[in-house]
Amino acid sequence: MAEQKHVVIVGAGFGGVCLAKELAKENVRITLVDRHNYHLFQPLLYQVATAVLAVPEIAYPTRAFFKHNKNVEFQLASAEGVDQERKVLLTNHGEIAYDYLVLAAGATTNFFGNESGAQNSYPMKSLQEAIALRSHLVHEFERAARVNETDDDERQRHLNFVIVGGGATGIELAGAIIELIDVFKKEYHSLDFSRVHVILLEAMGSVLPMVPPDLQQKTIDVLRKKGVDVRLNTAVTDYDGSTLSLKGGDVIPTKTVIWAAGVRAQDFIKDCGGEVDRAGRIIVEENLLVRGSDCVFAIGDCANFQHGTERPLPTVAPVATQEALQVGRNIMALIHGKKPEELGRFVYQDLGAMATIARGEAVMNGPIPVIGINMKASGFIAWTAWMFVHLMRLAGKYANFTVMMKWIWNYILGKRLARIILTKME
Amino acid sequence: MAEQKHVVIVGAGFGGVCLAKELAKENVRITLVDRHNYHLFQPLLYQVATAVLAVPEIAYPTRAFFKHNKNVEFQLASAEGVDQERKVLLTNHGEIAYDYLVLAAGATTNFFGNESGAQNSYPMKSLQEAIALRSHLVHEFERAARVNETDDDERQRHLNFVIVGGGATGIELAGAIIELIDVFKKEYHSLDFSRVHVILLEAMGSVLPMVPPDLQQKTIDVLRKKGVDVRLNTAVTDYDGSTLSLKGGDVIPTKTVIWAAGVRAQDFIKDCGGEVDRAGRIIVEENLLVRGSDCVFAIGDCANFQHGTERPLPTVAPVATQEALQVGRNIMALIHGKKPEELGRFVYQDLGAMATIARGEAVMNGPIPVIGINMKASGFIAWTAWMFVHLMRLAGKYANFTVMMKWIWNYILGKRLARIILTKME
Repeated sequence: MAEQKHVVIVGAGFGGVCLAKELAKENVRITLVDRHNYHLFQPLLYQVATAVLAVPEIAYPTRAFFKHNKNVEFQLASAEGVDQERKVLLTNHGEIAYDYLVLAAGATTNFFGNESGAQNSYPMKSLQEAIALRSHLVHEFERAARVNETDDDERQRHLNFVIVGGGATGIELAGAIIELIDVFKKEYHSLDFSRVHVILLEAMGSVLPMVPPDLQQKTIDVLRKKGVDVRLNTAVTDYDGSTLSLKGGDVIPTKTVIWAAGVRAQDFIKDCGGEVDRAGRIIVEENLLVRGSDCVFAIGDCANFQHGTERPLPTVAPVATQEALQVGRNIMALIHGKKPEELGRFVYQDLGAMATIARGEAVMNGPIPVIGINMKASGFIAWTAWMFVHLMRLAGKYANFTVMMKWIWNYILGKRLARIILTKME
Repeated sequence: MAEQKHVVIVGAGFGGVCLAKELAKENVRITLVDRHNYHLFQPLLYQVATAVLAVPEIAYPTRAFFKHNKNVEFQLASAEGVDQERKVLLTNHGEIAYDYLVLAAGATTNFFGNESGAQNSYPMKSLQEAIALRSHLVHEFERAARVNETDDDERQRHLNFVIVGGGATGIELAGAIIELIDVFKKEYHSLDFSRVHVILLEAMGSVLPMVPPDLQQKTIDVLRKKGVDVRLNTAVTDYDGSTLSLKGGDVIPTKTVIWAAGVRAQDFIKDCGGEVDRAGRIIVEENLLVRGSDCVFAIGDCANFQHGTERPLPTVAPVATQEALQVGRNIMALIHGKKPEELGRFVYQDLGAMATIARGEAVMNGPIPVIGINMKASGFIAWTAWMFVHLMRLAGKYANFTVMMKWIWNYILGKRLARIILTKME
């Protein structure tokens, strides 16, 4: 048996876990590094933020994936850079030497240089952020319901909820918050709910850039009908934690600004010895090798792949997992003596897009799961397809089952049992 | 319709919620005050700490209990004392005037003056504490598994787990941690598990004071067979966060000391205008009125009821709920014109005790639920009874169902899906 090559993978997201599972079958040694001990099912993060799902339903202990793979070792550490010369990954717990390295570190919130927004608003990319947001949302209603609150302006600040960004996350949050408020209506007996406002701000002329215009309009219509104040072409200039200022001079008094306006790569990606784009993503060749390297690859949200397309591939799960499979094949090809220029080129197969808006409401544009026929749909059919796709992809068989039950439960009864404030009480 | 009297209840635990539900049926106005927005099912807290259950399965939004009771208002606030003269409850969000007040504020961890223990060990009374403990337990294994950890003594510190206190919480934690380690054994491929030690320290000569000696011995035997190092007559003198010192001079190098050695009342109870005992509990008369008052009652863990018994009633849920029912009747009697001396006296009906040790192992001594026949049992029968009683009492019908499923799942497959580190990564 030949000496095992050591593949180090940074990030246990969709791309990293998929790649580690593939390579686990081969005669290689794998170290998977992540700063969290769990794999996060990002697409459902907003359901933790809005008290539909519990944490263990979307966060799966990474080690549990590799119970039966003795050649996969997990390391809880934060990557801090790569020394390509010495072939080591730098982490907050020392160096890890590699033969092949794959950067699959995902993305973080992009505030586009808006300092005040970064300091005072709620981002929604990590599990901790989702829990903080959930705690805050519920807490705001408790603050508004205080019998000793005499300042009416202050009370209003607690009842205005602003979401910045009309992408999938912004849309899904807006719809889910409206439904959360429906639950609260039954329980806050002395609160005037006509004063509760959910406002969605989008800097561009429409929402959901990845679906066709008619579905964009459909989405806006559904949200408005549900009571969301959707404002297009509305950019944010400043937020001091109490008053949100808009371009043009309008202000919204609010204690809640949720920032769902964009993503960028983690900071350390720029210290990995490659060239990065404006969003901090590292530029990769067609074979997914980092430009200039013959053993460092990058995939998913932290990679900029732009070959034969007008723009870099989008930061979505299917890109990451498809890239992971190609990198797996390419690493094995290198191990078997192939040259970098002989490696297979990555070709992305677009699986379309879907977003849920509310209970029983979603939009989709792409192939139907399993069957594969292209379909543009909205409403209940799209929602059912959305549910099906997300359940299929959820890690951990047990989670699937409870999530499905909770969704049915939530659909029928509109319950939200996870409304637990975990942040420190003031 | 007569003017509604205002009953203020401090604490949404077993006693407070039970009382509010009872009084909600009457023509009174109720304000339920708690510093958390949820009712916590304390007896299963250790299952959150050991990654069996998710947070929403044992924490239930308090307002959800009173959806249909418009005469019940909830207030999220920390009680700080009572001004009996002016009949107001003092909170961190201002005063709340009452006609009748019921203190049902529960208990907190008692470190018995051990300052170093209080600062460095993990208490296990609140939900945040249980989450912090769970995060820490999992994190310790990650620390021990670091490839760059070269200090062998330091590694050992991460693998010694000490529980202080042989009451129900200590026993249940010890057993659950052993089972959690069984899960880890499959996943930490390069960790030497012969170095992992779980140590239970009890200052007295036996564990579980509330069950007969033969069941105490049975409990110790089961724990030892499972691999727990049970040490009786062993008192703790000091813990600096790294080394635990025992009376007699022995030391245990460990980063994990879980403090399950006793409880006391919340600090503010002493500022409520009554007399308190050594554990800070307020002394109540036979009718549950705070000594010297004609409209302030106290129930549950924060009350010292000692009439016709050698010691104050134990700090367990059945005492709180039985007292709640009596206080409900007594408040209505006062409203209907009765004098304090005419109020009903509280008589505690002892329901026995039970504690689970591990999967399929428990001890019980008391009446069988529903049937009511007294029974002393251990092993699988006691475990089944324990499961049944706890499922019956769990708040929220939905939680019951998922908890039962998780227990079955856990029993058959030994899975622990909630192993999520939520504390900040170092």
